[in-house]
Amino acid sequence: MSRYTSMGFLRYLLFDVHHVESLFAYDKFSHLDSEQAWMIIESAKQLADQEMYPFFKVFDEQPATYDGNGGVKTHPQLKKIIQGAAAQSWIGGSAKFEHGGMQLPEMIFNTGQHIFQAANNSVQGYLGLSTGAADLITSFGNQKQIDTYVPPIYEGRWQGTMALTEPQAGSSLSDIITTAKKTDKEYYLVKGQKIFISGGQHEAADNFIHLTLARIEGAPAGVRGISLFIIPKFRPTEDGSLCYNDVHCAGDFQKMGQRGYSTTHLSFGDNDDCRAFLVGEPHKGLSYMFQMMNGARISVGQCAASVAMAAYQASLQYCLERPQGRSASEKDPTIAPTLIINHADVQRMLFTQKSIAEGSLSLALECNKLYDQVHVSNGEEKENYLLLLEILTPIVKTYASEQGSRSAALAIQTLGGYGFTTDFPVQQLYRDLKIMSLYEGTTGIQSVDLLGRKVTMQNGKAVQLLMNSITIDLKASNDFENLAPYSNALDLELKRMAKVLIHLSGFAMKGDIERYLSDATVFMEMAGHIIIAWQWLKMAVVAAQKIKDANFKSNSLEFYQGKIHTMEFFFKYELPHSEACAKTLEDPHTLTNVKTYEMFQ
Amino acid sequence: MSRYTSMGFLRYLLFDVHHVESLFAYDKFSHLDSEQAWMIIESAKQLADQEMYPFFKVFDEQPATYDGNGGVKTHPQLKKIIQGAAAQSWIGGSAKFEHGGMQLPEMIFNTGQHIFQAANNSVQGYLGLSTGAADLITSFGNQKQIDTYVPPIYEGRWQGTMALTEPQAGSSLSDIITTAKKTDKEYYLVKGQKIFISGGQHEAADNFIHLTLARIEGAPAGVRGISLFIIPKFRPTEDGSLCYNDVHCAGDFQKMGQRGYSTTHLSFGDNDDCRAFLVGEPHKGLSYMFQMMNGARISVGQCAASVAMAAYQASLQYCLERPQGRSASEKDPTIAPTLIINHADVQRMLFTQKSIAEGSLSLALECNKLYDQVHVSNGEEKENYLLLLEILTPIVKTYASEQGSRSAALAIQTLGGYGFTTDFPVQQLYRDLKIMSLYEGTTGIQSVDLLGRKVTMQNGKAVQLLMNSITIDLKASNDFENLAPYSNALDLELKRMAKVLIHLSGFAMKGDIERYLSDATVFMEMAGHIIIAWQWLKMAVVAAQKIKDANFKSNSLEFYQGKIHTMEFFFKYELPHSEACAKTLEDPHTLTNVKTYEMFQ
Repeated sequence: MSRYTSMGFLRYLLFDVHHVESLFAYDKFSHLDSEQAWMIIESAKQLADQEMYPFFKVFDEQPATYDGNGGVKTHPQLKKIIQGAAAQSWIGGSAKFEHGGMQLPEMIFNTGQHIFQAANNSVQGYLGLSTGAADLITSFGNQKQIDTYVPPIYEGRWQGTMALTEPQAGSSLSDIITTAKKTDKEYYLVKGQKIFISGGQHEAADNFIHLTLARIEGAPAGVRGISLFIIPKFRPTEDGSLCYNDVHCAGDFQKMGQRGYSTTHLSFGDNDDCRAFLVGEPHKGLSYMFQMMNGARISVGQCAASVAMAAYQASLQYCLERPQGRSASEKDPTIAPTLIINHADVQRMLFTQKSIAEGSLSLALECNKLYDQVHVSNGEEKENYLLLLEILTPIVKTYASEQGSRSAALAIQTLGGYGFTTDFPVQQLYRDLKIMSLYEGTTGIQSVDLLGRKVTMQNGKAVQLLMNSITIDLKASNDFENLAPYSNALDLELKRMAKVLIHLSGFAMKGDIERYLSDATVFMEMAGHIIIAWQWLKMAVVAAQKIKDANFKSNSLEFYQGKIHTMEFFFKYELPHSEACAKTLEDPHTLTNVKTYEMFQ
Repeated sequence: MSRYTSMGFLRYLLFDVHHVESLFAYDKFSHLDSEQAWMIIESAKQLADQEMYPFFKVFDEQPATYDGNGGVKTHPQLKKIIQGAAAQSWIGGSAKFEHGGMQLPEMIFNTGQHIFQAANNSVQGYLGLSTGAADLITSFGNQKQIDTYVPPIYEGRWQGTMALTEPQAGSSLSDIITTAKKTDKEYYLVKGQKIFISGGQHEAADNFIHLTLARIEGAPAGVRGISLFIIPKFRPTEDGSLCYNDVHCAGDFQKMGQRGYSTTHLSFGDNDDCRAFLVGEPHKGLSYMFQMMNGARISVGQCAASVAMAAYQASLQYCLERPQGRSASEKDPTIAPTLIINHADVQRMLFTQKSIAEGSLSLALECNKLYDQVHVSNGEEKENYLLLLEILTPIVKTYASEQGSRSAALAIQTLGGYGFTTDFPVQQLYRDLKIMSLYEGTTGIQSVDLLGRKVTMQNGKAVQLLMNSITIDLKASNDFENLAPYSNALDLELKRMAKVLIHLSGFAMKGDIERYLSDATVFMEMAGHIIIAWQWLKMAVVAAQKIKDANFKSNSLEFYQGKIHTMEFFFKYELPHSEACAKTLEDPHTLTNVKTYEMFQ
């Protein structure tokens, strides 16, 4: 079995860097201790080793495919995986006891999901969608809805989905036209088309519960007229049987990656008998959906980090086994070739991957911890955690997916021509990863969210809180002489980012919102470099302390040295591009407002 | 039919920017004029439109596949394409009249190839390999070899290949072990395995002529003991018939892209009857092969540019047709959605693609012109052209393939989720493009070639000549007030690069070659940004002159405005990363010389 993640690194992230044990002090999580938590993670690894990773390649070779008649053929193993995961609570594990869950912190639950994502990212999506759909019903549905839909989803019998996108609207949710007609019963009648519905149909579930955005007849235009509905493919009847609910899978999309994950086109109400059950109040659907959406954005970022991690591990393994070439100064061709890991450029490619994959995963855990902290705290503390989570969400989603693609490209590159062949997993990981910058809001959408909404909310309070959080780690790093230069470098970048924001806010203050946002993606790139530098400094502080204390119980001296080294690498090779982004952002020219389309020819 | 390149842009590059007509003054090309040259290009477009582009997708869906018994199944259209191209001299067109060619400048010939590469990159490889193999025989073979092998290759009946890579050696050619045993006849007997042999077997040729590197028994170790052989699959006999020459296709490689292009594993001499014909002198094979290799490197760079161009054109077309969303300042959701090309971030993605694809293609034409100039000049002039070509070769190969991948990723991104589906060509182009950073020497190999060999040759004369060439364009741009700031910015980057080279040469002078070369790939990235900035400034000068002269015979005012605009875009968004690379290169820490492998865990 090839390595696809590092258990030592996960232990370090969970316990040493992000202190999951601090959560166990809260009532909600007091039933856990560190040993139990780690056993749960290890059970995920075992499940992934046995049931998921061995099917990674075959899921790509035998993609989920529409059967021409409402069905989508999927690999038989999928059912075994979903049922195995459900049996170990990997769908409902983070739900409260009262809802059938194990009341696990997201930090624990999603570390398990990371292992699944790294092992076989096509299958983890099915689990994650079910979790998100059930959580959404639990948060905003009524008791009957919870009782009806949540248990079979957590049991892995029913598949949850999120149904937002429509052919004519794409990312622009304000333009959705799927219509819900009020009836005198407890249900609405829905009619419309939804595309790109992941997991919308497959062979491993008995029923599909689509959390669907639709517009109630007569609702206001735009996002303020959108409501959220539960639309089961088969609706439960009074006698407990299931009745076809006029939800038809009309086709699928074949894709360049994640081919084991079905992507469907759903048609609701072709026969005017698609009953939909309103969740919460009318017209508030988008705000409810954003609970699931925000979770999904963090999950996509984490998945990108996980796939990049799997690619890194595969390329590292190859570099440790493949002899080829000699050092640049070795002139004797009769000397035996060296392992390619000894070539400087190969080390550059490995450390680039390591810094991106591990840095992104650390940020994902930071977000998961914030999510947990939001849910165990109150008042201003809760609000502050939430603000931090909100500003980091688009960053983890985007950094991991954009830089993760670059990282997976380097995994291919370390294998040379072999990396391009289907004999090795790195090319599949590269193909799979490309979707992450598109799922749940493209990079452009995330960047406008960051600069247009998250930076500006509550007069910049989220930015301030983030700066405060980073400052705590800057101070901690100043305790170590070897880390001080990096602490200073990061401090400089934070000041640079503040300066950029002042520059950009000049446009906003003049009311030129277009210009304020026009380079949002460049700002996102800059912020990503800085935030990951922060994660690395945080990781380095922990490693330096371990080395100082000669505490090598959890991981070896070399492991900790590797962390400090990778931090130094990130600051030398990656962070300088933050300044380049700043230069672009401060450039006075507006070049993306061209009205004469012939200029693109 | 979708657009996959821009004929207006090609006309501009050929005649306005790179002045192909200046070549017609030389005897070798005096049979041509501009009108004829353009007609030849247009004939390539027609061939590509009719025979190549319509089969782009199906070549991916029905990949070249080993039949289990020495054969590789290919799409039936392949034979039609190769024969059609041969009939129009698109295999031998740049050869001299005396060798059956049309004595076309590489600039013309390869502009035609660009069209094929953009239309269907899987098929252009077959043509390019045949061209390169026949050229190699013409340059270094004897008359009998030329007479025997070149005509059927140019006629498209026989496929030429280059057979270098062996399983145990990879990029390290000094370790090849394929053995040639001298006989008392005119041939050697060869035994060995070659892998990754593109076009090594397929259904569209009657014979395969493998230009093969092997080691004559008793030859010195290393690259100085490598000889070049012609090894036909079927050897011509005295009576004109063909006899099986013990060259067996033992398998193929399935790949993530370029799936229509067969990639084979060849076994020579399984029955000890593989006759090989020495080209030129013994032990000089690698230097001969470098003629073909250098041509192939430029061609790979150009192909990467072409594929990026096709992706850009596909994404531009989508952006001009797809309505979605509204401007950031538009609050009224009842206003009709705008075309996505009106979104700033979409324009950013389009101009990024345009600047990379067109900039790379311009550099490829620059290289093709230098190749032509080498072949029509003498003495110091010839030598200077050759030095310039040599230093630009690894840059065009690497910039176009690395940044081209980024460009094609943006093509996917502009289409949103659709870009990831097989309904659109951009995902295939993205997959195809990834091989370009691996073919003919990986990015790491190219970077060591640039910094270790090309920068240092003749005490840096190539660098000096390159600086001189750029300075000519800097001066020309100073004639235009609106270009002067960009001229200054590029001048600054050239000085920065010179400073970096001085810094790095400090290591070399201390004899620390490892350290001198350790960040060669970062230097390559820096050089790439600067060289493409030069190409853009050169293109902008031409555009500014056209606008000044109100000369819109070849292209429109808006076309020329688009060129200046894209130049400005490149300088704002891309060029700043040159400085970031410099910062990395001047960083005193050595971080890619780790001996403790546990630090990678």
